[in-house]
Amino acid sequence: MEQKTPQRETARSFRSDRFSPLGLTQSLIEPNSTATGAERWMAEKFLSVAGNPPLTLDLWGTQEITPSGQSPCYRLRVADRSALYELMTNPNLAFGDLYSEGRLEMDGHMPDLLTDLYRSLDQAYEKLPLFLRMLWRDQAPRSTSLKAARDNIHHHYDMGNDFYQLWLDRAQMQYTCAYYEEPDITLEQAQLAKLELVCRKLQLKPGETVVEAGCGWGGLARYMAKHYGVKVRAFNISEEQVTFAREKAKEEGLENQVEYVLDDYRNISGLYDRFVSVGMLEHVGTDYYPDLAAVIRRHMKTEGLALVHSIGRNYPMRTNAWIEKRIFPGAYPPSITEFTSIGEAGPFSVLDVENLRLHYAETLEDWLARFEANIDTVREMYGENFVRAWRLYLAGSIASFRANALQLFQMVLAHPENNNVPRNRKHLYTSSNVPPEDSY
Amino acid sequence: MEQKTPQRETARSFRSDRFSPLGLTQSLIEPNSTATGAERWMAEKFLSVAGNPPLTLDLWGTQEITPSGQSPCYRLRVADRSALYELMTNPNLAFGDLYSEGRLEMDGHMPDLLTDLYRSLDQAYEKLPLFLRMLWRDQAPRSTSLKAARDNIHHHYDMGNDFYQLWLDRAQMQYTCAYYEEPDITLEQAQLAKLELVCRKLQLKPGETVVEAGCGWGGLARYMAKHYGVKVRAFNISEEQVTFAREKAKEEGLENQVEYVLDDYRNISGLYDRFVSVGMLEHVGTDYYPDLAAVIRRHMKTEGLALVHSIGRNYPMRTNAWIEKRIFPGAYPPSITEFTSIGEAGPFSVLDVENLRLHYAETLEDWLARFEANIDTVREMYGENFVRAWRLYLAGSIASFRANALQLFQMVLAHPENNNVPRNRKHLYTSSNVPPEDSY
Repeated sequence: MEQKTPQRETARSFRSDRFSPLGLTQSLIEPNSTATGAERWMAEKFLSVAGNPPLTLDLWGTQEITPSGQSPCYRLRVADRSALYELMTNPNLAFGDLYSEGRLEMDGHMPDLLTDLYRSLDQAYEKLPLFLRMLWRDQAPRSTSLKAARDNIHHHYDMGNDFYQLWLDRAQMQYTCAYYEEPDITLEQAQLAKLELVCRKLQLKPGETVVEAGCGWGGLARYMAKHYGVKVRAFNISEEQVTFAREKAKEEGLENQVEYVLDDYRNISGLYDRFVSVGMLEHVGTDYYPDLAAVIRRHMKTEGLALVHSIGRNYPMRTNAWIEKRIFPGAYPPSITEFTSIGEAGPFSVLDVENLRLHYAETLEDWLARFEANIDTVREMYGENFVRAWRLYLAGSIASFRANALQLFQMVLAHPENNNVPRNRKHLYTSSNVPPEDSY
Repeated sequence: MEQKTPQRETARSFRSDRFSPLGLTQSLIEPNSTATGAERWMAEKFLSVAGNPPLTLDLWGTQEITPSGQSPCYRLRVADRSALYELMTNPNLAFGDLYSEGRLEMDGHMPDLLTDLYRSLDQAYEKLPLFLRMLWRDQAPRSTSLKAARDNIHHHYDMGNDFYQLWLDRAQMQYTCAYYEEPDITLEQAQLAKLELVCRKLQLKPGETVVEAGCGWGGLARYMAKHYGVKVRAFNISEEQVTFAREKAKEEGLENQVEYVLDDYRNISGLYDRFVSVGMLEHVGTDYYPDLAAVIRRHMKTEGLALVHSIGRNYPMRTNAWIEKRIFPGAYPPSITEFTSIGEAGPFSVLDVENLRLHYAETLEDWLARFEANIDTVREMYGENFVRAWRLYLAGSIASFRANALQLFQMVLAHPENNNVPRNRKHLYTSSNVPPEDSY
C-alpha cells in the first residue's frame, strides 16, 4: 500500500483538480486557435478591472493586449484558451494554479511584476463591480481546531527538514521574518538579530522560565537558553520539527535547559516568567484568539511579559484562495485590531507594538535567492509543479509585503499587575543586535 | 446680568445638586446620632463587596469598621449618615462629590490610599452581584459632536490660563503625559523630553509641514517649529488656549512658522507631511474615530506619518461618573483595539505603539505637588469645594495609572503607500531626549 507522506500529499495538491464552469465553451473552440474578438474584448476588460497593471497580456502567442497608456515592462503569457477562462472566473485561485502547471508565464523580475500587479489590484478593488467582488471573493480560512490544526501544520511544516534546510538560514533555521537591523547583513545575521531583539524585548534574566508556543525547529528556545540562561518549554505540533529540535538541543548540550513538547499551545501547563510565540498566530485563527489569550494569562506570573510575533494586515481581509488552499491551510494574518485583541482578551497591558513589514520582504528575497540556487534539488524532490508553486509563493509574499498587503507585527504584553515594566525602550538599542558574520 | 464665566460654571458644578433616593430614611433618624446596627451591617457589606480594601471606615465618629483580616494604614471618614447612604447608592459619583463637599475625608497619603482602593475594587468587580453592577454602572459619555465638543472643551480648558500656570510645567505648559526618560528629572525636563520623543517618532525634517489637532497652549507646535524647522498649523477649539498660544508664538518670533487655528479637527484643510495629536483623542469619542481617521488620511501626503497620543485602557470601560460629570464631560479613554481601530479605519500601517502608563503617574505626582504648593491661590480663585475636587481628580488619576486602570498609548501611523519608513527605532535613542535643567 502506498504510504501517505507529506511530500506525496503536497506534490499531489499542485496537480490540476479544478472544476471549470466554462468547460462547454472551451470544448467548442480549438484550444489554441487564434483568440477571438470576444476573447480579446474580455481580456481587455479583465485588465481594466485589475486597474490596468503595467504588463502585456499574451494570449497563447496569438494576440497581445496592452492596457492603454501603459508601456509595460512585464509580460504575462497565458498558454491556452482554457487558462484564460479559468483566470477570469476565479483569478485568486487560478493565477497560482495556472502558474504552477506552467500554463501561465511571467516575463520580467517576478517579485517586481507581482508588486506592481498587487498595487494595481489594490487601487482597482474599490471600483470593482459588486458581482465580481462576490465571484472572486476568497473563502474564509478552514478550521484551526485542535484536530484540524494538526492537519494544517502537517501539510506545510512536515514536508521534510531537508527541503527547508536548502533555503532557510544555516544559523538557526528560522522560518519567520528576520531583522535586518542594517542593510546588507546576511540572512544568518538577520535571523540571529531577530532572536536577539525578541530576547531583549522579553528582558530575559538568568534562571527565568519561558514557555514558547509554536517553536519551529527550536532555534529561539536554544538561543534563549544559551545566551540568556533561561529554562524553556517549547510547544509544537509538527513532528518533524520537534524531532529536529530535540536532536539539536542534545548536540548543543542544552537538553537540561530546553524541553520540546510535541503538543498544541492549548495544552500548555505550568507557570512561567515569560511567554513567547513567533510565527504561530497566523495558524491560530481569530476564533481561538481568546483561548490563546487565556492560555498566556493562565500560565503567566504576576511580573510576567509575553511577546507575540505574527504576519498581519492593515485591515481584515481574507487569505488569498491559492495560498490558503495550496500553501497554508487555515492561515489567516490578523488586522491590527484583531492582533491587539489578544491583549484585550487577557487582559494584558500592551506595552509595545513594532511593525517590521519591510524586513519580511528582505527575508523572503534571501529565501527566494537560495531556493533558486537549489532549484534542481527541489525539482528532484517534488517535481516541477511544486518548484513553480513554491517560487510563486515566495515571490508573491515579497510583493505582498512590499505593496503593504501584509504587515509584520511584534507585540509585547505585560501582566496587568506588573508595574516592574521598563521606563523606555533604550535597552533594545544599547548595542547592535547583529552578531559578527563568523560567529555561528 | 451675571455673566456666565467658565470659572463660575465650574465652581457651581461642585455644589451638591443630587437627588437622594434615601431622603425619607435620612429624615427619620437624627443625621449624626450613633450609627445603628443596620447601618454598621450595611457598611460592612459595602466594604466586603469593595474587596475589603485596607482601610478603616469611620461612621461620623460614632463607629469604626475594619475589614476582617486587614490592619489598615488608611482611614475613610464619612461625615454624616446621609453621606453613607449616598455612597452606597451611587459610589462612583458620590465618592467624588462627598469628598469635594468635605463630607468624606481620607487619612493617609491620598494617591496611595486610592491606588490600594482601586486595586481592591478591580479584583472585587468580578464577584460583584449583578444588581450592584447595574446600579453602580457609569453612564456612557455625553456627545462629542461638533457643537457638544465646544461645550465639553470649554468646561475644562477655558477655566483660566492663570490656574493651569500654577501647576503645569513652566517650559511649555503641557497638560499631557510627560516622558521621564530617567527618574528624578524635573517636570520641565520630562515635558520637553516628551516633545522631543514625539518629534523623533515623527522624523521631522526642516521645511516639512505639520498639522496638529488639539494643540493645548501650543507648546508642541512651537517646539517643532523652533527645533525642527517645520511649518505647523495647529487646531484647537479652546479660545483661552489659542489666545495664549498665539501670544507666545509672537513673543518667540515664530508667527511665520506656526499658525494657530481656532477650529475643530473636523475642519482641517490642506495637505501635510505629518499629522500629530497629543491628548485630544480622549475627547473625540469612539463614534468619531472613523471621522478622525478620514481627516488624517485625507490631509496626509503619500510619504506621510502621523502620531496619536492618548490615555487608554486595557479593555473597554466607561469613564468614572464623577470624572465624566464634574471634570471631563464627554471624555472616554479608548481600549487598545479602539485605539488601533484608527489605523484600520484610515487605513494606515501601524508602525509603532508605545505604552507610557507609569510616566503619567509620575507627571501627575509632580502636578499634584505643585497644586498643593499653590493651594491658597487656587482656593481664593475657586473656593474650597473646587480645591478638594481637583485634588481628588489628580490623586485619583495617579492611582488609576498606578493600578493599571489607565494606560498611555502613543501610536505612529504611516500612509499605506509609504515604503520610506525607518528600518528600526534606533533613531529615537541615539542621544538623550532630556535637555539640561537650565535650558528653557
